[in-house]
Amino acid sequence: MTIRDELAHLTLDLCNIPSETCHEAQIASWVQQRCAAAAGPHAVTRLGNSVLCEPFGRDERPGQPVIALVGHIDTVKCAEDQPYEIRDGRVYGCGASDMKAGVAVMLALLDRWRELENARPVWIFYDGEEGPAEGNGLGPVLDSGALPVIDFAFILEPTDRGVQPGCMGLIHATVTIPGVRAHSARPWQGQNAIYAAIPFLEKLRDWGRREVRFGDLSFYEVIVATAAATHNSRNVVPDALDLNVNFRFAPGNTAENAEAELRALAGPECTVTVTDSAPAGDVYADHPLIAEWIRREALPVLPKQAWTDVARFTTAGIPAVNFGPGETGQAHQAGEWASIDSLEHCYGALRRWFAQ
Amino acid sequence: MTIRDELAHLTLDLCNIPSETCHEAQIASWVQQRCAAAAGPHAVTRLGNSVLCEPFGRDERPGQPVIALVGHIDTVKCAEDQPYEIRDGRVYGCGASDMKAGVAVMLALLDRWRELENARPVWIFYDGEEGPAEGNGLGPVLDSGALPVIDFAFILEPTDRGVQPGCMGLIHATVTIPGVRAHSARPWQGQNAIYAAIPFLEKLRDWGRREVRFGDLSFYEVIVATAAATHNSRNVVPDALDLNVNFRFAPGNTAENAEAELRALAGPECTVTVTDSAPAGDVYADHPLIAEWIRREALPVLPKQAWTDVARFTTAGIPAVNFGPGETGQAHQAGEWASIDSLEHCYGALRRWFAQ
Repeated sequence: MTIRDELAHLTLDLCNIPSETCHEAQIASWVQQRCAAAAGPHAVTRLGNSVLCEPFGRDERPGQPVIALVGHIDTVKCAEDQPYEIRDGRVYGCGASDMKAGVAVMLALLDRWRELENARPVWIFYDGEEGPAEGNGLGPVLDSGALPVIDFAFILEPTDRGVQPGCMGLIHATVTIPGVRAHSARPWQGQNAIYAAIPFLEKLRDWGRREVRFGDLSFYEVIVATAAATHNSRNVVPDALDLNVNFRFAPGNTAENAEAELRALAGPECTVTVTDSAPAGDVYADHPLIAEWIRREALPVLPKQAWTDVARFTTAGIPAVNFGPGETGQAHQAGEWASIDSLEHCYGALRRWFAQ
Repeated sequence: MTIRDELAHLTLDLCNIPSETCHEAQIASWVQQRCAAAAGPHAVTRLGNSVLCEPFGRDERPGQPVIALVGHIDTVKCAEDQPYEIRDGRVYGCGASDMKAGVAVMLALLDRWRELENARPVWIFYDGEEGPAEGNGLGPVLDSGALPVIDFAFILEPTDRGVQPGCMGLIHATVTIPGVRAHSARPWQGQNAIYAAIPFLEKLRDWGRREVRFGDLSFYEVIVATAAATHNSRNVVPDALDLNVNFRFAPGNTAENAEAELRALAGPECTVTVTDSAPAGDVYADHPLIAEWIRREALPVLPKQAWTDVARFTTAGIPAVNFGPGETGQAHQAGEWASIDSLEHCYGALRRWFAQ
């Protein structure tokens, strides 16, 4: 069996195990057994529905970097008419690109762990990535104390055969614009909060996007009103308009700075309440462990204009990038697929990383 | 017992009968018995929980105008600590001003129906006024065929000892401003419906109020955004903003005209869906049956800058005005009261109307 066939069938096997977020017990057990078969039961740690595999002893390969290969095992809810098959150079299945293909590459590398040179790799399979942030299994894994000190992490999310370093941070905030209540038949006795919001909405509209450069990479900071809501009955001039404002800030910026900037933009009349917050991921495109490899493999390097778990690693002080098989545009699609070319490309590039 | 005492005790008796909207059976039966005792059972018609009383035969007093005295018998939900007593020149009770005081004046006049000259009065007590429009008992009464042809109607809602002719009409419409959906991390790929609404919101803000004069009366047409809502998740640039827009139009204008004006204001990009509609009430302040009486009684005449059941009469071709005891500012208040002065004033003015 060629490596292409092996990777394709492994991806399809993984797709055939239902693993919607909050229902990962079955796939976690499957992955756990696969890890134990490859590296021995003593190498495997299960934390809830997350699985760690560390085949090398901690005193083996002294001086070599500890490299984490990281993937989530859950998927979003699957489409009803999702095909499951290998056809026309693609693996079809729910989660094929996001990110059963990445998990398949990780398992194929684990099957050959003794052949991976010049590093001491560890494998992290975690649950809950597609659900709300508080249910994400990676945080507890990083906090568990079960891992060795990691020098670099590859997150095998789909990256269209490129490297995507860093990621945006975000805050969500409720900005409340006040008004003065009145009967809607006598609006001149009040002040309409919806109209009072116009100057702030104009500022947001005109804010545009702000480029933040890291070497050749451009991240774009944006600040967007994504929801509007009033809470009065319909025959009343509203005394408050709530806007959800989403600030996406670039690596190097912080949630605190973003909040301060939003407060300045909203002005003292408005109430600003931050409801969610996630840090940006630091940019490690030119990290010494990968810079030469990126050049040699001629990998396109693209900024991650969204939030990913890269931020969890870099916030914990661990350099990390997104690099995985599959197609970003296929993530969460009905009829999702991953190309076998991308599987082979990612597997080959990582094999060569360990051989460098 | 003076007429002041009689009116005050009658108002308190009416307040002591629970009659929240949808629970009017008890008070309807009480009013029905009161009518039958005053005018004989043959004079009384019960329609659901509405009661009609027509003591004069239809061939009596030929050539005299048929005058309706009109009041609703229900109240809003009562406050828990509402006092029920006569104290300091006031009657305290749930619904005292809105409008048990008016019903008391109606019943006191009915007790003396033989003494009422120069007209053929009928009494209309109806249910469901404080609930949604579709439950209002006056519509079925007017449609029932049980009434004679009415020449003029006094609605005894509280009017602060003045006459309030006409009333505003209204439409509510949902105006949907379209946008183009995008991920909130890449808003430049979409078009934000909230920002797209700014020009329309500016038009509404600047619309101000439009005076419509009837003789000395000024009504003010207004068009107000009273609610804003989006329906996307918070990490998405919204592709639609729904505004509830309330247009209050003056007597002489129509819901159709108001809708056309709103559509022109919103422009062709927006979707306008009318969700509620009520006609304006015509203005009869200088009607020959009341013009001289208003002058002689020196009654202040004020436009009704809201909707009332006057519109149901004038839409049915029956001239009508609001004129009743009680205080408009007390309607729906906790601790509601009606002043005995206002009861005596209204009763006296209507007695003199029948004597003119």
